[in-house]
Amino acid sequence: MNTRLRIDLGYLGTNFSGWASQPERRTVQACLEEAVASALGYRPEAVKTVVAGRTDSGVHALRQVCHLDLPESFDEQNLEGLRQRVQVELATDEIVLHEIQFAPAGFDARFSALSRHYEYRIDDSSSISNPLRSAFTHRVPHALDESEMNFLGEQLLGLHDWASFCRAKPEASTIRKLMDFSWSRDHLGSLSASVVGDAFCHSMVRSMVGAAVAVGRFRLSVSDVLVIRDAKKRSSSWTTMPANGLTLLTVNYPEIDQLQNQAIKSRARRDKS
Amino acid sequence: MNTRLRIDLGYLGTNFSGWASQPERRTVQACLEEAVASALGYRPEAVKTVVAGRTDSGVHALRQVCHLDLPESFDEQNLEGLRQRVQVELATDEIVLHEIQFAPAGFDARFSALSRHYEYRIDDSSSISNPLRSAFTHRVPHALDESEMNFLGEQLLGLHDWASFCRAKPEASTIRKLMDFSWSRDHLGSLSASVVGDAFCHSMVRSMVGAAVAVGRFRLSVSDVLVIRDAKKRSSSWTTMPANGLTLLTVNYPEIDQLQNQAIKSRARRDKS
Repeated sequence: MNTRLRIDLGYLGTNFSGWASQPERRTVQACLEEAVASALGYRPEAVKTVVAGRTDSGVHALRQVCHLDLPESFDEQNLEGLRQRVQVELATDEIVLHEIQFAPAGFDARFSALSRHYEYRIDDSSSISNPLRSAFTHRVPHALDESEMNFLGEQLLGLHDWASFCRAKPEASTIRKLMDFSWSRDHLGSLSASVVGDAFCHSMVRSMVGAAVAVGRFRLSVSDVLVIRDAKKRSSSWTTMPANGLTLLTVNYPEIDQLQNQAIKSRARRDKS
Repeated sequence: MNTRLRIDLGYLGTNFSGWASQPERRTVQACLEEAVASALGYRPEAVKTVVAGRTDSGVHALRQVCHLDLPESFDEQNLEGLRQRVQVELATDEIVLHEIQFAPAGFDARFSALSRHYEYRIDDSSSISNPLRSAFTHRVPHALDESEMNFLGEQLLGLHDWASFCRAKPEASTIRKLMDFSWSRDHLGSLSASVVGDAFCHSMVRSMVGAAVAVGRFRLSVSDVLVIRDAKKRSSSWTTMPANGLTLLTVNYPEIDQLQNQAIKSRARRDKS
């Protein structure tokens, strides 16, 4: 039987073409797989990861999760030692390995996940420009009304078809459950959205934030956005916000005895699409 | 009569050799003075700034303040337009100009200041490694006890001779008033010190943080540190912490009618040293 490892990691996405490997591009997945192969003395093709959140080019992660199946010959017991060796092989501080552990039975980084938690950070005209945080905060030159944006967030919660917020992908379901979409300001006036959902379609979070910005500027009303959502067609009434403001904070999994069940449920939902 | 401008700015200090101009080095002061000269069409030597907090190499600032005297010929009225032109001349997002304004009578960026507010950020072994914030957070591999560090902070407050915490500078006073030195943890377990004083000697904040880390690891007791402070001799009982964790947050000034008085008081204090 193969050994499955769970890897928790963070990255500053600025100089990566996203998570997923692509020819000739610097991606987090390719850097990680190469570093693991190198640390274990495997051929690079032997190491294939499956990730919880396939982040786009320029998107960051604080605690991303992936898994990795290793051949029978794998007999490393000191996973903290392995973590340190892989971190050295990565040869960058743009990727931080938090932990490598043996995955419990039934664990699948993608399909066992119950929910994903994202953050989107915006500085508006009432925030102080912060050169320390500009790598992960998007700046808009307008004033944004966060109570209006919070009202939109409340109205969007629940199980819906999000086709109006997704880049079209034929035959893929766009039904998702949104559990949190709330805004707060820190002491520097910087806005931050907490966005939690069971899963997100491609560019959905950044499109939702674009709708919230349009509402925060009073260019659209909350009910305009709800009408567009219910039309279930990609809309040009707002813009998809840039990647640099977006960070995947955490991925939530059920208790160990529910991992397998959750994976079966998630897969069934995708198959129906 | 000359025109005095007040400039408020922030910078990510990572790739600067500190504030103060030095031959052959990239410094914030040199970049700013060149950009202002260029935007106004002056010779570079005509622009000389005086700063509130002379930050060291690698130290950041969120809202640093400096002033600048311009010749009689200066007749620009649109200072927001000037700010935008200087920002373009800077040709980097590592320095952000918040505001350029006419300084009120009696204003001196350095000597009118009532207090300086710094932050020092530390991730310890109970913080999650955050690749997004590593540029301005120092990482230590130990567990730190923040209640012990807060107890030290309280005990250090007040007017004292800080010679034990300062790099020696002959004939300069090391008497300073410390108004705040308190620690808190955010939701990611990251530690942050708020440090407020009327002024700080060279490397004083980073040395105080070094003492706090020694106390937080239980390598020194709070009373050990107080004994060393009262000896008024530079000590090797703790290390000065690295620059990357330090940020000048703000500089506080008195009401307009007290600017001149405060400058006279500050200068008198320095002259006694």
